[in-house]
Amino acid sequence: MANGADVLCDTLLLNGVDVCFANPGTSEMHFVAALDRKLDMRCVLGLFEGVVTGAADGYARMAGKPAATLLHTGPGLANGLANMHNARRARSPMVNVVGDHAAYHLPYDAALTTDIEGLARPMSDYVRRIAGPDDVGAATAQAIAAAQRPPGGVSTLILPADASWGEPASAAPVRADIRAPSPPDGQRVAAAAAALRADGPDCVLLMSGAALRTEAIETAFAIAAATGCQIIAQQSNARIERGAGRHPVERVPYVVDVALKRFASTKRMILVGAKAPVAFFAYPGKPSSVVPDSCEVSVLAKPEDDLLGALSELGHSLGAGPAPAPAPAPMADLPSGVVTPQGLAIAVGRALPEEAILCDESITSGREFFGFTHGAAPHTHLQLTGGAIGEGLPLAVGAAIACPGRKVFALQADGSAMYTNQALWTMAREGLDVVVILLSNRRYAILRGELKAVGAEAPGRNAQRMLDLDQPAIDWVSLANGMGVEAARVETVDALADRLAAATAAKGPFLIELMI
Amino acid sequence: MANGADVLCDTLLLNGVDVCFANPGTSEMHFVAALDRKLDMRCVLGLFEGVVTGAADGYARMAGKPAATLLHTGPGLANGLANMHNARRARSPMVNVVGDHAAYHLPYDAALTTDIEGLARPMSDYVRRIAGPDDVGAATAQAIAAAQRPPGGVSTLILPADASWGEPASAAPVRADIRAPSPPDGQRVAAAAAALRADGPDCVLLMSGAALRTEAIETAFAIAAATGCQIIAQQSNARIERGAGRHPVERVPYVVDVALKRFASTKRMILVGAKAPVAFFAYPGKPSSVVPDSCEVSVLAKPEDDLLGALSELGHSLGAGPAPAPAPAPMADLPSGVVTPQGLAIAVGRALPEEAILCDESITSGREFFGFTHGAAPHTHLQLTGGAIGEGLPLAVGAAIACPGRKVFALQADGSAMYTNQALWTMAREGLDVVVILLSNRRYAILRGELKAVGAEAPGRNAQRMLDLDQPAIDWVSLANGMGVEAARVETVDALADRLAAATAAKGPFLIELMI
Repeated sequence: MANGADVLCDTLLLNGVDVCFANPGTSEMHFVAALDRKLDMRCVLGLFEGVVTGAADGYARMAGKPAATLLHTGPGLANGLANMHNARRARSPMVNVVGDHAAYHLPYDAALTTDIEGLARPMSDYVRRIAGPDDVGAATAQAIAAAQRPPGGVSTLILPADASWGEPASAAPVRADIRAPSPPDGQRVAAAAAALRADGPDCVLLMSGAALRTEAIETAFAIAAATGCQIIAQQSNARIERGAGRHPVERVPYVVDVALKRFASTKRMILVGAKAPVAFFAYPGKPSSVVPDSCEVSVLAKPEDDLLGALSELGHSLGAGPAPAPAPAPMADLPSGVVTPQGLAIAVGRALPEEAILCDESITSGREFFGFTHGAAPHTHLQLTGGAIGEGLPLAVGAAIACPGRKVFALQADGSAMYTNQALWTMAREGLDVVVILLSNRRYAILRGELKAVGAEAPGRNAQRMLDLDQPAIDWVSLANGMGVEAARVETVDALADRLAAATAAKGPFLIELMI
Repeated sequence: MANGADVLCDTLLLNGVDVCFANPGTSEMHFVAALDRKLDMRCVLGLFEGVVTGAADGYARMAGKPAATLLHTGPGLANGLANMHNARRARSPMVNVVGDHAAYHLPYDAALTTDIEGLARPMSDYVRRIAGPDDVGAATAQAIAAAQRPPGGVSTLILPADASWGEPASAAPVRADIRAPSPPDGQRVAAAAAALRADGPDCVLLMSGAALRTEAIETAFAIAAATGCQIIAQQSNARIERGAGRHPVERVPYVVDVALKRFASTKRMILVGAKAPVAFFAYPGKPSSVVPDSCEVSVLAKPEDDLLGALSELGHSLGAGPAPAPAPAPMADLPSGVVTPQGLAIAVGRALPEEAILCDESITSGREFFGFTHGAAPHTHLQLTGGAIGEGLPLAVGAAIACPGRKVFALQADGSAMYTNQALWTMAREGLDVVVILLSNRRYAILRGELKAVGAEAPGRNAQRMLDLDQPAIDWVSLANGMGVEAARVETVDALADRLAAATAAKGPFLIELMI
């Protein structure tokens, strides 16, 4: 006889959700037993929930559909929230299943009793507690539909143990009602066309989401060719298609003053699935918006709309021809010796194999990356979207599971990597084809800069001890080996290039600790 | 000119809060700069927020006063929530300071904007957003007072960046209004005395909190000597004083059926700062409460009351004499060879130096620990109170910082240790005197047992891959070395005893990976 947990699994599978990133506990044991009966479900263990939710994000970005997660009660969910936040900002579809006590057990306030709804809401687009065994199918289908409602969202489903172990009247899985993106809005298209005709070269098309896939980028560049407008991506994006043969998209600069300067002469900003750019943090005396007051901001398409469709209609209404071929951007020669941000970018750009996936949590070290890698082999670039560090390595796990035939590079800052270092173990466990380039500067370098900016020129003992990762230095080779991942330390660009070549030629995870 | 951040630091220091466990970000940079100006504040960096909050819990349990934590916006708080949950269950005083965007920046919904109050509330006893620079002193004093309101609680203070960098009208720190525990309730004392006179041997005094300090335990055993009642501690407790010369307190068993049997003939249960015992998880067909329906449960003293005072008055009203000396419980001889739970307990019990602090997140492996260690040197035992795994190592960090003259042993399960393995780095950074006994069974052993209990005798591939930590096995020696902690692997009780002796004789952190 099937129980609630079986219906949950079967409903996931019926709707194409066949990967479950998991870290289970006692209250989920009937769910574990049910998963064990479903041979079509791939269960991937993360040794910490931040790995689980970050991997689900990376999976969704590359698979275009949600994975499930299995989390244990409120604290398990809490551990996964930071990367749920990143996923929500990336608009990644995700279906979290959070086990809870049996409903009748909650009033006893056992040690693990928490307000799961309260914890879930800030980082979820949809939250639902399953009412009982008969509600499992409908609730799961709704959660899947909510996760896939364009442009994508984070669903959190709370599964009480008695809903899991109880027997429903019907064991039939339920099909989710999946919506398509909204069609382009004719009025918005017309308004954007008028704006571009009037002020083409002083207009910016600000793009994100599905507007950063190859065909949409090409359509935008056709519009740029016809009108002289500029094509810029959000500062952070879930996914950008890049590399030789594709049109190079610059991004909104991170540093407030640089961004202000970039948009100083922009008259009109037209949003294509993007948000108007704002400062990542507030600073005394600096504005929150980096768009000048005189600039008119309008929307061509909202994130939930058909972005490619809207761009196509806009191009059509402007009479734009096909986009000219992108200018060749040959990769610079590899420099030698000590590692600079430029040398890092060139070495990685030259090493990227065709159709690689680059997961970028490089923080300070990677800011110059784009400029030097427009001519790299065609690849997909994934960014940290929500600013919650500790997502890079889990993202690589998820991307590798979604795309087993593609090489994954993880460009990873050391301070952020420590947050979810457990992801290395999952890479080893699953034999994932990931090369981690671990940028070891042994400090929270971004914060050193910020401290200087608030006027503290020479940090004292307390500040040093909060911003530096030395004393002791972390030995990433030892750490990676401890979790079953082969690793090597390099100190020059030449050595980096050699290691990248070797790691790219081989299969399976490898970590390169790069001293910078 | 002092800013809001200075007033915050000065208010902490004025009220005796002089340790800050921290993982800062950009929005806290003025707070970091202020901490850097306060030489009396000890700032301790954790490389993940679970380390930060777990260390604050361990510190509070041993110091009897709160530490501050410094957390970066909603995701930083989210990463610390699981151990805040444990701290709340331990009733540990704690003052979390969570940086947020400047108030005027919030409407722009920058990437790191989240509902911090929503995240904080489920794991906090007190939450307050600082209104501006002039509110910093009062808000901080209230948060400190709330944290120290008996029996202790978790305060979360949200510090907007502009409240931190703004200049308040007054720079004077504010004194917190610290309340004392409530005095014993005469009626409750009389009722408990009557119950014990009527049914002494069938009564249980169920104790927790301050009732598990040496003098309170002794007072309880004097009452037991006078009435024949039984003295039992909650299943999980923030702190118990144990070892030779102290009265041995048993605990409520974890396994439901064992607990039901233990209380089958109990007529009256009298709570002394404890909660009536319930099953840790619900199981089909088993009750939530492990106290029989026929048992009358009453309260001698609530957690916020003066527990020692209540026990003393009860003893007085019963005419109890001094407690008899505890029966000697000589440590068993060290067994040889393969490691059993019993051998582990004896080896650790024999190695514990006088006044050691034992942080216990041993999960399955440590269930038999108490029975074999009543005769160990006098020591303090700290437990996982909220069931959120990943607290053992951070707890050891905090306890070691609170008590620099005392040796800390961490009895630590491997699966749980992975959650917050970053704590090892802080042990190395701060040179903490901690011996980690890492129990390497390479599985979530508790869950293997639970899966069996739901009827899955032979786990299949999916279940195995969610419950076993092998393929690859984690090399804890390599992991610890990678974070600057010396380590060794042992496979027998004899080798464990040798390593424990050496690590105890030395100073500083050491990890023993014990293959079990």
